[in-house]
Amino acid sequence: MHSSTPIYIALLGLGHVGQGVLRILQDRFEPLSERMGRPVILRYVLVRDLSKYAKIHFNDATLVSDFSIILHDPDISIVVELIGGEFPAYDYITTSLMNKKHVITANKEVMAKHQSEFFSLAKTHKVDICFEAAVAGGIPIIRALKVGFAANKINSLHGILNGTTNYILSKIQADQLPFSEVLKEAQRLGLAEADPSMDVSGLDAAYKLVLLAGVAFKRLISLEDVYYEGIEDISLEDIRFAQELGYDIKLLAIGKHFEDKGYSFKVHPTLIPHSHSLCGIKDESNAVFVYGDAVGESLLAGKGAGGAPTASAVVSDLIDLIFEIDQPRSLRNLDTELIPCECLAMDQSFSQFYLRLLVKDEAGSLESVSRALRDSNLSISSVLQKEASDTTASLIIVTHTCFESEFNTAKAAIEGLDCVLNLASVIRVRLDEDD
Amino acid sequence: MHSSTPIYIALLGLGHVGQGVLRILQDRFEPLSERMGRPVILRYVLVRDLSKYAKIHFNDATLVSDFSIILHDPDISIVVELIGGEFPAYDYITTSLMNKKHVITANKEVMAKHQSEFFSLAKTHKVDICFEAAVAGGIPIIRALKVGFAANKINSLHGILNGTTNYILSKIQADQLPFSEVLKEAQRLGLAEADPSMDVSGLDAAYKLVLLAGVAFKRLISLEDVYYEGIEDISLEDIRFAQELGYDIKLLAIGKHFEDKGYSFKVHPTLIPHSHSLCGIKDESNAVFVYGDAVGESLLAGKGAGGAPTASAVVSDLIDLIFEIDQPRSLRNLDTELIPCECLAMDQSFSQFYLRLLVKDEAGSLESVSRALRDSNLSISSVLQKEASDTTASLIIVTHTCFESEFNTAKAAIEGLDCVLNLASVIRVRLDEDD
Repeated sequence: MHSSTPIYIALLGLGHVGQGVLRILQDRFEPLSERMGRPVILRYVLVRDLSKYAKIHFNDATLVSDFSIILHDPDISIVVELIGGEFPAYDYITTSLMNKKHVITANKEVMAKHQSEFFSLAKTHKVDICFEAAVAGGIPIIRALKVGFAANKINSLHGILNGTTNYILSKIQADQLPFSEVLKEAQRLGLAEADPSMDVSGLDAAYKLVLLAGVAFKRLISLEDVYYEGIEDISLEDIRFAQELGYDIKLLAIGKHFEDKGYSFKVHPTLIPHSHSLCGIKDESNAVFVYGDAVGESLLAGKGAGGAPTASAVVSDLIDLIFEIDQPRSLRNLDTELIPCECLAMDQSFSQFYLRLLVKDEAGSLESVSRALRDSNLSISSVLQKEASDTTASLIIVTHTCFESEFNTAKAAIEGLDCVLNLASVIRVRLDEDD
Repeated sequence: MHSSTPIYIALLGLGHVGQGVLRILQDRFEPLSERMGRPVILRYVLVRDLSKYAKIHFNDATLVSDFSIILHDPDISIVVELIGGEFPAYDYITTSLMNKKHVITANKEVMAKHQSEFFSLAKTHKVDICFEAAVAGGIPIIRALKVGFAANKINSLHGILNGTTNYILSKIQADQLPFSEVLKEAQRLGLAEADPSMDVSGLDAAYKLVLLAGVAFKRLISLEDVYYEGIEDISLEDIRFAQELGYDIKLLAIGKHFEDKGYSFKVHPTLIPHSHSLCGIKDESNAVFVYGDAVGESLLAGKGAGGAPTASAVVSDLIDLIFEIDQPRSLRNLDTELIPCECLAMDQSFSQFYLRLLVKDEAGSLESVSRALRDSNLSISSVLQKEASDTTASLIIVTHTCFESEFNTAKAAIEGLDCVLNLASVIRVRLDEDD
């Protein structure tokens, strides 16, 4: 059946995703080889500690701890990098490309930091670098943007790109537990790392947004161009009050093109009205809304993380690569000469804002706060006042749309008021105009 | 920049989709040629009546009414068929393939009826036939299943595949108007055809399900294997009662693999619990849920119809085709040797059922109906009774899960009861077990 030459590949790393890929390659060898028109043979698996994997069944693959064996085997045409982190992944990827080996990676960090160099190396050496698995796990968002929506000018995209934070926020709301307890539970379940900071700080989503900026807008940005803010300060109280006002709180990544004004990229907790489909994206799921000029609004949603969904994305890259591996030129990545771009400063960004204030529970508190907002030209969309103690009240305000700079002026004014004991939270609210 | 040989293409048909494709090819010529690595030149547009299009600007394309001009031009490597219907589309597609021209089509009817022949011709003549635009317009579902989820065994898929019926059902609910009035409005807006029967009968969705059976399950089925039922009999009353019980009514297409029992393909109006994301898919939008063994549950949603979204899908096929057009073998369609399969007879299918009965408004009616159901071994999940007139009541029952055959027995028993004046509606309810 498979008269064609086999493709030999190497796997770097054998964590959850690596084991998932191994399983798919073993369990589905026949249909996959059929699909790709030739057998795909896993020749090497690179791990740091050989003894640790003595019990795993690798068929004919050799376990190695020395990358140069892979690099110098001329039969290996595809290297699958699943070790994560910047180094040594960077070295493995660059030397693979320079040795005319295609690369598939699930590593958002190294991609976000070095994509431009990788693309240019790939072009020079007539190979491809694929990274479907680096953004939103099992959701085929990279391929959808590179091919499915390629006829479109993309105007904006909005996504829940981090499964850990979406799980935490969903659970705080569902179980009415504070952040710290839910985080512990997520760690116990393997849904949060022992050091959860990359996820909860918004950094992980920011890396992914850097990659989406390239694929959706053809723009080369770096982490410094992304404003990001995490969920560490989102309290159970905020989630309850948001609920009462008709919102869920999600960590949203937003990329947007403003005609004549440039691009804006940000990641921050966001109040989303209950009527919006993003509120249906719960637990560790991810979702991306794409707004294209021809296709209109599209939504792709699914498992954002986990060994099996991410491995599924890795294998989809493998299939796609092999479809054109005999093609004289590498075409799939032609579109990777990304254009550097101006990004809007955050103070020129606009939003509605949710504020939670602790105020003195006395007549006139609400009036003082309202006046301070009005004096800064900010108008109020909704207000909720709740007794917090005998002498204090929680005052929750949602403003109308304003610029960040205007909001900051108003915020300073409010913090200076006698009746305001504490400005406990500021969270942005999703704008309809964001579409 | 484009040192490579251009690709010459021909467009058959210039309706909404054809004009949309023309617009994208003209407006985005530069970025698309860049993306594809070579310029794409539209050489011919085939229409029936040349005089009708005198005012349209075609750049260098020639308007023709004789297909043989296109067929015998050896420069044309891709034919884009957008005329719809079975004939003459069938002849254009087969002769194009036999003349080694790739085909892109948005035509679900001709594809559903002849896919097997088309795939085999394409294979023989080493070309491809692409049909992303034939299912769910702007949603890249074909590519997602062929590549994005190709590592998975797909267990089931559930979709809203017809924009017209989804628009009609959404509007009946939103505006509280009867089917006939909403249909007229849809026709006025161009969202329903003058003869709406293909859409409202479920036939259009059934064609699409035939195509998805091939792409998702690799199974060759025909229209006869799909049970389909339309929305003609869905009344405003049913939609109101369903609402009250916590459901929306959608026309759902379901494809499912039962281990050891074969496949089941059906299209019917379905009560969907409000908590399910499908309820968020409103108006002319489409959506497909895919359940894969590695990727878990994924959702793709977007505009299901309309010139621009469908044209966007056509152009995505063009890009994908050109990516591998120089490849010595046609690989993308290797996976088109579909396997004929056993489909479950409808009476072996199981569901929950919603029934609306007109009964005599007297003590004992509910009891008689309950007893008849119990005697047929059907248990009741929820009941709603409402006065309909002085002497009659509407009795709404949702059963627990049962086989269609069991339900049919119960139905006959109920219809034979003295107190039952009319069994006004039977609608299936979406099962959680369907996941």
